[in-house]
Amino acid sequence: MRPTLQDIIQTRKTINPHITRTPLHHYHALDTLLDAEVHVKHENHQRLGSFKVRGAVSVVSQFTDEDRARGLISSSTGNFGQGVAYAASIFGVKANVVVPTDVNPGKAESMRLLGANLILHGREFDEAREYAERLEREKGYKYVHSANDPLLTAGTGTYTLEIIEDLPGVEVIIVPIGGGSGACGTCIVAKSINPKIQVVGVQSEKAPGAYLSWKQGKIVEAPMQTVAEGLATRQGYEFTQSILRELLDDFVLVSEDDLNLAVVMHLEKTHSLTEHAGASSLAAAIKIKDRLQGKKVALVVSGGNISRDQLRAALDMAGN
Amino acid sequence: MRPTLQDIIQTRKTINPHITRTPLHHYHALDTLLDAEVHVKHENHQRLGSFKVRGAVSVVSQFTDEDRARGLISSSTGNFGQGVAYAASIFGVKANVVVPTDVNPGKAESMRLLGANLILHGREFDEAREYAERLEREKGYKYVHSANDPLLTAGTGTYTLEIIEDLPGVEVIIVPIGGGSGACGTCIVAKSINPKIQVVGVQSEKAPGAYLSWKQGKIVEAPMQTVAEGLATRQGYEFTQSILRELLDDFVLVSEDDLNLAVVMHLEKTHSLTEHAGASSLAAAIKIKDRLQGKKVALVVSGGNISRDQLRAALDMAGN
Repeated sequence: MRPTLQDIIQTRKTINPHITRTPLHHYHALDTLLDAEVHVKHENHQRLGSFKVRGAVSVVSQFTDEDRARGLISSSTGNFGQGVAYAASIFGVKANVVVPTDVNPGKAESMRLLGANLILHGREFDEAREYAERLEREKGYKYVHSANDPLLTAGTGTYTLEIIEDLPGVEVIIVPIGGGSGACGTCIVAKSINPKIQVVGVQSEKAPGAYLSWKQGKIVEAPMQTVAEGLATRQGYEFTQSILRELLDDFVLVSEDDLNLAVVMHLEKTHSLTEHAGASSLAAAIKIKDRLQGKKVALVVSGGNISRDQLRAALDMAGN
Repeated sequence: MRPTLQDIIQTRKTINPHITRTPLHHYHALDTLLDAEVHVKHENHQRLGSFKVRGAVSVVSQFTDEDRARGLISSSTGNFGQGVAYAASIFGVKANVVVPTDVNPGKAESMRLLGANLILHGREFDEAREYAERLEREKGYKYVHSANDPLLTAGTGTYTLEIIEDLPGVEVIIVPIGGGSGACGTCIVAKSINPKIQVVGVQSEKAPGAYLSWKQGKIVEAPMQTVAEGLATRQGYEFTQSILRELLDDFVLVSEDDLNLAVVMHLEKTHSLTEHAGASSLAAAIKIKDRLQGKKVALVVSGGNISRDQLRAALDMAGN
């Protein structure tokens, strides 16, 4: 059930024609900031602006003819939906995606332009997800979950193969956690290659569902009030939590102010556009700076699809 | 003297270990905007945030032992200086870079962190360049010009190899022009592979030195008042102009407002950070939209090193 390192290597062959091998860049300005050797994995420069496309292409590429004929249903705050819409367009499948009503407008436009049928429902991700599960039953669509799927993790795990190829001596990888598919891939690849590589997850204090589920060793729900829609899950999910519980070394919470500041620091230090979820790995690194001293650190920037309003608010918060 | 397609292919072997193969992404949102098939060459995601590193590594890699011992002097508004500083650090050369006194602070920090000795001199690029040429004579440094060098063009030409590999049917390539090394590489590669590929250059109305030199067929100077430091040359340069005069199909000027708007459109449509020079290809495409209809177009985004103040000003200009 849980993908192995070999599964992830195999999946890379399948998805590589459809995705970008993103750079891992070293930034002296972040070395200075963190007193460590800091590299950034730029999944914000991935096709469609986030790592999610890796998992989506992996899942849809394995559809049976019958699955393809049924059409798919999924739910998303935006990035996974773009990945699903893109994957569906490659493999000739009709995509239906349920998104919360306050969806990021750029992400919504992108999904529509990729040919997806958007269904606006619910105030937050998990309400959209529950509605998608209802439509699966009522309409007979093939359901694509944004976390509970080994094929998804086999896809997202591929960026960690690239990190270790580019920086074989990496000692710490910090990865944003929403549903957890990205972090699970990181854990499986890193720990299979070298169990001493530390993997640290990060979530917002304002959406600690996955964090609390991990801490308490069971699925728990928590209020979801973060601006970082890429981290905005209300709860942990069974499949990803089972992997994180065993393999994740630590899990850090950061504040909304930390996230806004990290978005602005990325503008200035890496000259790249990050969404709040994507910037959370830098926010976490700043928070645990004393534990990173002198180490080779990779920060996963999971995505860059920030809206203009979110960016302006981050700039205003950070001041001059 | 002028590099050939084969020279550029050869140079790629030399520089590839030190640079990133940047993605060429297709954006449906830009297709809609321009009524064409629009792809973006993301040199803003290049190592150090601009295409300049390709040329700098190409030049410094060919230094003799004596050149290396002398140390180098160059001049830059920031991006070429970062490339030179990086290349010098790879090949063990001391780098001295003259920059205008109002240099973009993020670019200056990056050059210093790469080990370069920064010399602040002059109000604009060409004053810094003249001072660098004086220091070459006085101090005996090896001089690295940011445009007049075939090795430079052999390096910058490599991104156009990548464009055509990723989109063999490309019909129009729009490229920002400052000193012209990027555009010359584009012209040589594109025209050698298929003379029917149209190459269109773009510069700011507020710094039309290269444009006027190209139009008039001789080197002329013009006032330099653009916010886009990557386009901020006061004049054309002999070597690059000789190539552009023969191979460039058209040259477009855009306004400062066009540039600000294009920076903001990149935030929203490609979710990437572009500096004004980098966004100028999109500004030009909007301006000549009627000539692009239905065509496969590649927009070169030459760099992404915009400052926080420049970004805020662009957002303010663009409104809501």
